[in-house]
Amino acid sequence: MGLVVQKYGGSSVADAASVLRVAKRIASYRQAGHEVVVVVSAMGDTTDDLIDLAGAVSPDPPARELDMLLTAGERISMALLAMAISGTGHEARSFTGSQAGMITDAEHGRARIIDVTPGRIRGALDDGAVAIVAGFQGVSQTTKDVTTLGRGGSDTTAVALAAALGADVCEIYTDVDGVFTADPRVVPLARRVPVIAHEEMLEMAAAGAKVLHLRSVEYARRYNVPMHVRSSFSGRTGTLIVEGEATFPIGPDQTYSSGSENSPMEQPIISGVAHDSSQGKITVIGIPDVPGKAAAVFQIVAEAGADIDMIVQNVSTEVTGRTDISFTLPTADADQVVDVLEAAREDLGFQRLEYSGRIGKLSLIGAGMRSHPGVSARLFAALSGAGINIQMISTSEIRISVVTEQDDLERAVRAVHTAFGLDSVEGEAVVYGGTGR
Amino acid sequence: MGLVVQKYGGSSVADAASVLRVAKRIASYRQAGHEVVVVVSAMGDTTDDLIDLAGAVSPDPPARELDMLLTAGERISMALLAMAISGTGHEARSFTGSQAGMITDAEHGRARIIDVTPGRIRGALDDGAVAIVAGFQGVSQTTKDVTTLGRGGSDTTAVALAAALGADVCEIYTDVDGVFTADPRVVPLARRVPVIAHEEMLEMAAAGAKVLHLRSVEYARRYNVPMHVRSSFSGRTGTLIVEGEATFPIGPDQTYSSGSENSPMEQPIISGVAHDSSQGKITVIGIPDVPGKAAAVFQIVAEAGADIDMIVQNVSTEVTGRTDISFTLPTADADQVVDVLEAAREDLGFQRLEYSGRIGKLSLIGAGMRSHPGVSARLFAALSGAGINIQMISTSEIRISVVTEQDDLERAVRAVHTAFGLDSVEGEAVVYGGTGR
Repeated sequence: MGLVVQKYGGSSVADAASVLRVAKRIASYRQAGHEVVVVVSAMGDTTDDLIDLAGAVSPDPPARELDMLLTAGERISMALLAMAISGTGHEARSFTGSQAGMITDAEHGRARIIDVTPGRIRGALDDGAVAIVAGFQGVSQTTKDVTTLGRGGSDTTAVALAAALGADVCEIYTDVDGVFTADPRVVPLARRVPVIAHEEMLEMAAAGAKVLHLRSVEYARRYNVPMHVRSSFSGRTGTLIVEGEATFPIGPDQTYSSGSENSPMEQPIISGVAHDSSQGKITVIGIPDVPGKAAAVFQIVAEAGADIDMIVQNVSTEVTGRTDISFTLPTADADQVVDVLEAAREDLGFQRLEYSGRIGKLSLIGAGMRSHPGVSARLFAALSGAGINIQMISTSEIRISVVTEQDDLERAVRAVHTAFGLDSVEGEAVVYGGTGR
Repeated sequence: MGLVVQKYGGSSVADAASVLRVAKRIASYRQAGHEVVVVVSAMGDTTDDLIDLAGAVSPDPPARELDMLLTAGERISMALLAMAISGTGHEARSFTGSQAGMITDAEHGRARIIDVTPGRIRGALDDGAVAIVAGFQGVSQTTKDVTTLGRGGSDTTAVALAAALGADVCEIYTDVDGVFTADPRVVPLARRVPVIAHEEMLEMAAAGAKVLHLRSVEYARRYNVPMHVRSSFSGRTGTLIVEGEATFPIGPDQTYSSGSENSPMEQPIISGVAHDSSQGKITVIGIPDVPGKAAAVFQIVAEAGADIDMIVQNVSTEVTGRTDISFTLPTADADQVVDVLEAAREDLGFQRLEYSGRIGKLSLIGAGMRSHPGVSARLFAALSGAGINIQMISTSEIRISVVTEQDDLERAVRAVHTAFGLDSVEGEAVVYGGTGR
């Protein structure tokens, strides 16, 4: 007997047949005696369809109303799922984010969770019902208006509820079999990561692995919520995200057996290779190499609202007394940042700006690299062996990231994946995806 | 300056273009300085589509979840309408039934309004914003669950808000130009009724005129809310529903000018001819003519949850000591009622049941018939002149209803419409409909 929070994404509830399949899975957990809270996203492409509708009536819809509109999507999927569960003979009650006690700030479209007061959820569980909660939404503490947490926010809803309810595990159902050592569309020999620590998962998500929403991993790490990323299209165990030292929880469906495969003891040195081609690189050329100039540049960039990722400053040449600063940022923000920097050129005293949207970032992630020297040497050797030039490098305790030409990126990922022995060996059953999406 | 509550039905907000057209109309009221509260239904066929979805996951969806599902429809339309209004330069805020203070009992799918606490609506108006309210829904006082008022409930939402806010008028926008003297699909010469009293409108709605939801008229009558039924596809004045003795309000858009056409003084003797072919007739044959038998029959029928309309008991024949009782009821309820009556046949002591689903009801409505003798004589003469047999008759102070063969019904409506001088005369501009629906 345990308390399980399950989150189902839009592809898992894309149509009536999918909803019925998910209901059957939930019923099997109830049958086994577990308490189940389900967080559900909008069906399939509903959210995109609603955004299109908004665009048809307004070029710039007010954020409050956009949130009101988009939350209709989860309202539909959660009610249908509750109906389908009732059809299996188990009681189910659906709750909006507001009813579930997801209290947020008033930042429409990207609200942050302030508090979780799941009294009605606890009440439903006490009554023996499955509680279905609308993902991605909450209610503002100050204005009492409906808010949304932003794209992928349903993962965060699930983790926040799991933390507030003290759940044994937060299962994230998706259309792939878990977290992979690399994107299987790029590396056909990628394999499932059986266990990964929150910290590494955070780096994976930040580095471009899309299976989990970054904020949900941050939240899970802070509140030490064990997560299980798995496919709703199979019964297979997926990827467990647990504290490095923790033994992972005994789960509701016997798939968490503490077999050797899942033991943290066998955690590999390297968890995986993530990549991201959504960023661009701006280089500020010939900026005076005096204290405070870099700070002034990034103050201006921050005021433009852009999220900076990697930063590299060249060694100054003594002759000119000038240096170059490169940084990466989402390509969507690039135009605006270039504009504000150009406007400040005289103040900053730089010579010119260069921008490239054709870069790619490869990140190698693994807690093991802390204690294993030579990881970066092997990484650079793999890239050089493949004839790939490195433009920027940045490192953390458990991650090394490099920027390459975008056209080289996928080749780079494959070369590094092979060099670190991550390729699956023949005969190993590796299954990726369930819907073909 | 006044306070106007406007209700737009699903056909008025069927797509983005319609939403933009409605927004423009609302903006013109704001422009004129009026406070505007808008109640909106789900777009076009959304509600039916959602019901189909529910049917695809459950043969018998729980009522609580069906309400949660259906309320997504208004959530979409109200947010889109608020966006569209913002695009005209006026502020708009959308509110769910719960946010708007529509407090109901807990009867899902057919909740009754217990209280209206429109504090947030009043606040939005005070801030200069248009308040958009989801029609058809509320929140249960006891369970805090989302409820719906049943089909057509948005009219009732609008009237209830108008009453609670002390609005000058409640405008019901639809796809026809108002209330007609008969259904123009049956009587091409039907004309718009310029003014009608609440009481007569109540009889019209009860007798099958579908332009207004019965409960909304009851509510408007109780709280003396002036209504204006009109088309959202034209700027024309529609039908004013006001107290017989009251002068109707000076309205927001100059179309309420107290011209002679709209004066209650010129209210015709007969308001219109309604018809209804959705009912069936059950006859209980050979029931002992002793006190209490009729009561026993209708007790059983009431327990089956059927709404009885007309009742006729034959004069008993002295020879047998038995009589026949006929009553009409919605055909949807007929099978169940026949079953429960058959089960009670021995107790009730009747000989057999007859059922016909092929009946039609014609109702002639008008406050004028109180003081004008000969109305029923003229009605029967018109029907007999058309060779139409009358099966049942029932009367009230302002209505006479007759049941005929269903195949005779439309012919009967035309004959009666002509006999009472309701046909429009040549040259009169009569426009029905706007969408062709």
